[in-house]
Amino acid sequence: MFVVSRPPTVPPLVAMIGGGQLARMTHQAAIALGQTLRVLAVDADDPAAQVTPDVVIGSHTDLDDLRRAADGAHALTFDHEHVPTELLDKLVAEGVNVAPPPQALVHAQDKLVMRRRLEALGAPVPRYAGIERLDDLDAVDALVAQVGGPVVVKAARGGYDGRGVAMADDAAAARAAAERYLSSGVAAVVEERVAMRRELAALVARSPFGQGAAWPVVETVQQDGICVVVIAPAPDLPEPRAAQAQQLALRLADELGVVGVLAVELFETTDGELLVNELAMRPHNSGHWTMDGAVTSQFEQHLRAVLDYPLGDTDATVPLTVMANVLGAPQTPTMTIDERLHHLFARLPDARVHLYGKGERPGRKIGHINLLGTSPEECVNLRERAELAAHWLSHAEWTDGWDPHQ
Amino acid sequence: MFVVSRPPTVPPLVAMIGGGQLARMTHQAAIALGQTLRVLAVDADDPAAQVTPDVVIGSHTDLDDLRRAADGAHALTFDHEHVPTELLDKLVAEGVNVAPPPQALVHAQDKLVMRRRLEALGAPVPRYAGIERLDDLDAVDALVAQVGGPVVVKAARGGYDGRGVAMADDAAAARAAAERYLSSGVAAVVEERVAMRRELAALVARSPFGQGAAWPVVETVQQDGICVVVIAPAPDLPEPRAAQAQQLALRLADELGVVGVLAVELFETTDGELLVNELAMRPHNSGHWTMDGAVTSQFEQHLRAVLDYPLGDTDATVPLTVMANVLGAPQTPTMTIDERLHHLFARLPDARVHLYGKGERPGRKIGHINLLGTSPEECVNLRERAELAAHWLSHAEWTDGWDPHQ
Repeated sequence: MFVVSRPPTVPPLVAMIGGGQLARMTHQAAIALGQTLRVLAVDADDPAAQVTPDVVIGSHTDLDDLRRAADGAHALTFDHEHVPTELLDKLVAEGVNVAPPPQALVHAQDKLVMRRRLEALGAPVPRYAGIERLDDLDAVDALVAQVGGPVVVKAARGGYDGRGVAMADDAAAARAAAERYLSSGVAAVVEERVAMRRELAALVARSPFGQGAAWPVVETVQQDGICVVVIAPAPDLPEPRAAQAQQLALRLADELGVVGVLAVELFETTDGELLVNELAMRPHNSGHWTMDGAVTSQFEQHLRAVLDYPLGDTDATVPLTVMANVLGAPQTPTMTIDERLHHLFARLPDARVHLYGKGERPGRKIGHINLLGTSPEECVNLRERAELAAHWLSHAEWTDGWDPHQ
Repeated sequence: MFVVSRPPTVPPLVAMIGGGQLARMTHQAAIALGQTLRVLAVDADDPAAQVTPDVVIGSHTDLDDLRRAADGAHALTFDHEHVPTELLDKLVAEGVNVAPPPQALVHAQDKLVMRRRLEALGAPVPRYAGIERLDDLDAVDALVAQVGGPVVVKAARGGYDGRGVAMADDAAAARAAAERYLSSGVAAVVEERVAMRRELAALVARSPFGQGAAWPVVETVQQDGICVVVIAPAPDLPEPRAAQAQQLALRLADELGVVGVLAVELFETTDGELLVNELAMRPHNSGHWTMDGAVTSQFEQHLRAVLDYPLGDTDATVPLTVMANVLGAPQTPTMTIDERLHHLFARLPDARVHLYGKGERPGRKIGHINLLGTSPEECVNLRERAELAAHWLSHAEWTDGWDPHQ
């Protein structure tokens, strides 16, 4: 039923579960490789479903829908982490080439499974306690006593962009938060709130053959748990620490058996230590800069990896790239996105705009902007301009008070 | 019937006549701008029709098919020059926003109209004679006597990639070639065969608002009348001559009322003079390097221009980009394109590959490869590697004898 080997003349077919912006941008990369991406989308108006002709409408939690998406595909991959592992196991048993395989993917789906595995592998992680049932709650007190400060309580599954994460200043608050997650049916991970200098991300890709490739390590800037800016490469990151982050990410990709892109989100502590925060096994927001600033974009690399092509060069093409997310404003401006784009292009002709074709809702990622710099010294200026552009595009408001008619 | 003003929430819709690789790559650019390109394709398997969901199947010489493609589009544009002007005039009369407008486009469709107009504008062109009927043939003798050397005879309409071009060493041969074109119903242009150092191309874009933008001038290398390599920027081109070429192209775009991308193909003579060879009013092979080597690609710029957005930055992002076309081999290799791609990626991880999803036929453009360089001094090496890669991809043969298994 499923064609896994490749026929001689037809280009390879990759099916991606999820019709969001990651699938949309993966289709752009597929076009260059002579391919057409198939997507499993909930709605014909999903970002990726708007732009590729090969759309399967269905749910990522419905086995038959997943089967329809996988039928005839040389690899089945993902633009999110939310496909239940048990369904993927069934697809694998039926001969579908699931990439990344479910036994790897589970580490991006379940934070508690991930923490335990990383700990077992000797990877640096924050101190934590896993809470799977009410009996485990005493471990919260022990952890709070041990770290002697505030903690973070995370739902083990289902969270993203700051959802499923609660801050707790003492043991009582942490227990309460963990109980809430337990009562909604998911385990909780209670972690020390790390004293950090900043967040970094190490993005790598791995192919089934075992080849790995690492992009330059980037700094990611979050607001309210949502990534807003990425600076590539991370400014003033000592070369040995950058190499340490890359090697860690490549090792994890290998140990976990990742196929495709792996994003390792890291805390750089005030002591200069690196701790793993989260894992994602798909193209990731921290890699959007690669579309305009690297020889090989993360989207092409993901396709190359899941199809077991040799991986592409991950070097930056320019000394500095800054990415800013366009996040939906609290109130959609009366000026249309088309008019806003017109003004943006007029003021910033060098802005590389990527729009996702999404409706505007507060805080929703509706696009991103890349700006390219000729030297690392431009970082502050380039970041200001990228944020200015991104804010304009969602709010129709120049934060520096600029008026084109003055 | 035709919506020309833009509704508030829907992204602008561009319809492109022709479903070839230029439309395919324009769709990639449309995706980033939040759009979906509509294409009028002859066949559902055309390069662009494979990758966009908005496909109108039909002929570019059928008025009703053109109308269906134009229905609801904010701009109607082209991936080739072959739509009869009289049909476009009808569409314009019906309110369609044809970009470039027919009165501009005719200069890319008809070499005789173009030559005469350029001459009238004082633009530098080779000496020529226009042959519209048998009575004009005496002008061939006069021209051959005047230039005192071999001439080129071109069909005024319908030629591309070296077709519709004949070389003639004397007046008799030139008359015979011109007569052949006349008898097939097209006028002929007889031109001096220019003593040239090389060919250049000046690529610009112009918006209806009147904004113009010029990319760096490139060198184009032809074999048998087909472009095989483009080097950006043109090596050792004195800055004043580059500026002269850019200004000429911007002036022509303006004088002719071009909307969209205009490619001005130029001869650089052995005396260091620039002469206009051909015009194209669409994304052009000489601009494929911009996909990986410029801030704004020609495909995005074409969309921005036809939609009257402000134009994007045309600067190169790297000091040198070399593009090589992948041309179908005399015999399609037994190794599949997928396997060839695998080997290519293994040997040249920095090759930026763009495949068109076309069947392989001898001499047919089936893709191109961009390589990025860090200094102009790399030119010879980069060109060798780009040609090596392109030849491999079509022929499954490393011209330098390399063997991966040795």
